[in-house]
Amino acid sequence: MKNIAVIGAGGWGLALALLLNEKGNNVTIWCYDEVEKNMILQHRENKRCLPGIKLPIEMAFLTNMDEVLRDKDVAILAVPSKAIRTTAELMKPYLSKDTIIVNVSKGIENETLMRLSEVINEVLPENKVVVLSGPSHAEEVARHVPTTVAVSSLDEASSEFIQELFMSHYFRVYTNDDLIGIEMGGALKNVIALAAGVIEGMNYGDNTKAALITRGIAEITRLGVAMGGKASTFAGLAGIGDLIVTCTSGHSRNRRAGELLGQGYTIDEALKKVNMVVEGVPTAKAAHALMLKYAIEMPIIEAVYQALFENKSTAEAITMLMQRDKKSEL
Amino acid sequence: MKNIAVIGAGGWGLALALLLNEKGNNVTIWCYDEVEKNMILQHRENKRCLPGIKLPIEMAFLTNMDEVLRDKDVAILAVPSKAIRTTAELMKPYLSKDTIIVNVSKGIENETLMRLSEVINEVLPENKVVVLSGPSHAEEVARHVPTTVAVSSLDEASSEFIQELFMSHYFRVYTNDDLIGIEMGGALKNVIALAAGVIEGMNYGDNTKAALITRGIAEITRLGVAMGGKASTFAGLAGIGDLIVTCTSGHSRNRRAGELLGQGYTIDEALKKVNMVVEGVPTAKAAHALMLKYAIEMPIIEAVYQALFENKSTAEAITMLMQRDKKSEL
Repeated sequence: MKNIAVIGAGGWGLALALLLNEKGNNVTIWCYDEVEKNMILQHRENKRCLPGIKLPIEMAFLTNMDEVLRDKDVAILAVPSKAIRTTAELMKPYLSKDTIIVNVSKGIENETLMRLSEVINEVLPENKVVVLSGPSHAEEVARHVPTTVAVSSLDEASSEFIQELFMSHYFRVYTNDDLIGIEMGGALKNVIALAAGVIEGMNYGDNTKAALITRGIAEITRLGVAMGGKASTFAGLAGIGDLIVTCTSGHSRNRRAGELLGQGYTIDEALKKVNMVVEGVPTAKAAHALMLKYAIEMPIIEAVYQALFENKSTAEAITMLMQRDKKSEL
Repeated sequence: MKNIAVIGAGGWGLALALLLNEKGNNVTIWCYDEVEKNMILQHRENKRCLPGIKLPIEMAFLTNMDEVLRDKDVAILAVPSKAIRTTAELMKPYLSKDTIIVNVSKGIENETLMRLSEVINEVLPENKVVVLSGPSHAEEVARHVPTTVAVSSLDEASSEFIQELFMSHYFRVYTNDDLIGIEMGGALKNVIALAAGVIEGMNYGDNTKAALITRGIAEITRLGVAMGGKASTFAGLAGIGDLIVTCTSGHSRNRRAGELLGQGYTIDEALKKVNMVVEGVPTAKAAHALMLKYAIEMPIIEAVYQALFENKSTAEAITMLMQRDKKSEL
């Protein structure tokens, strides 16, 4: 039995909290504010982020970071990527250096272009950090759908500890020592999913979407390898695996936001309709900056960036993308 | 304007015939027998394989191979993979050596474990052979859904000629000089699609299917590379691209047949319900033999083979597959 803090009461934090609670651990969940906490306690459910899933009474919900982090073996960071730094700073005064941090958020810090584990390391340099990523919609994990993910860390022992902590009959955890690849795959796939959603919203078909996903993983791999990741990671669970589920599943918010863009909604309208964090939007900006920094050809990232931030019509951006001239596949 | 013979009046042959007809070519289609021909001519439609698509009057349907092949620049082979050799033999007496053969069937000859272009070369050694493959459901191509495919040939000039012949505003054709990779990707993905269908039929979720597809492309790549193909081809349109569309699209017969197996139907019942050729079934046998020949670890192929040919329960085979012990991803 371990003492676990889950920082963030959104869908993914709750799904992982449930899993760890079922495995007999002691789980405390930090809520952003009293409003969120009371909303959850009233129904023992987060109706917005994980509807239909009851949260058992032994799971504690608190807003006091001091109490949440006290005597914890593991703290799981499950907040939106843009809140990673401020949340780590909030944790800093109360965190034991022996508590292992598990980051399950996916993104890139826009201001610094740092990977999220780098941000966490900068704020909390004494703590070991493990990243967990892969094709894993919270809605399915909470319903015990067989799911497979990868964990990675600069510290191999921490990686293996977290692997054992999460492993269950419906949740298989592989280790992968390519931290850069694992983080970049998880972050960048959300941008490609926006484009895949646009294709659906514009009523293109499955053939078109498959071609886009194929070109998408090639783009992600090019950038990730330039940054020091391994091509084989992008061919694995946190790469193509996560990209496929994010581009094809009805659960994906990034795909859904893209679909609304493809149907002609503005990005503000689309985000309002989805009503949850759509990581692909800020990540598109960071990915575009990384594309320029590493001088990599990334036409899908470019098209999404133009549609989101340069007032180009989404339809126009994606149509141009599909008609680029290229003769040989390799 | 080119003179084109399309050998086979199923969905894919017809979709490509329509495309070439629209581009102003002269297209003649060979039907297997008078029954098929009359069924098509009665409605100017193949209601079983490509319902809802009208076949214009200028497209000729014949059963006489002599007439079909006379003075043709290109002959497109669009028959089930098991009929490739006998069809090539049927063509042989009437075929000019200058007619380029384009094979669009996907499979492996079970008796010899030859790729289909090897079979065609053996029967028709004087003709150039080009292979066309990629994520391209016939139903969508016939409706002008933007589609991207790859062509490959031992003869580069023929490859480029066929690229130009097919290229249109909704059909993009890339060349790829890795003939082995293009053919093995197209053949093997149908077996993985059967397994993906089983997962759906058993009500596993999107997370589970994405993990299976990820492991599936890894298996295909291992075997294809051992046979002389390039890993990059399996990361491209005829590899992961075609695998994604075949595992996720409602149009896929192989996925659909697997879904019925997962729901508890026998393979005979499933094939009867699908009522079109399900290439994954014979290909599972060939893939299993190749796995043994090249001594490659292919647990998904093994599971599908056992379910289809060794009376193992499909549920049992796939469940065992999902629970294999493995600790590190790479």
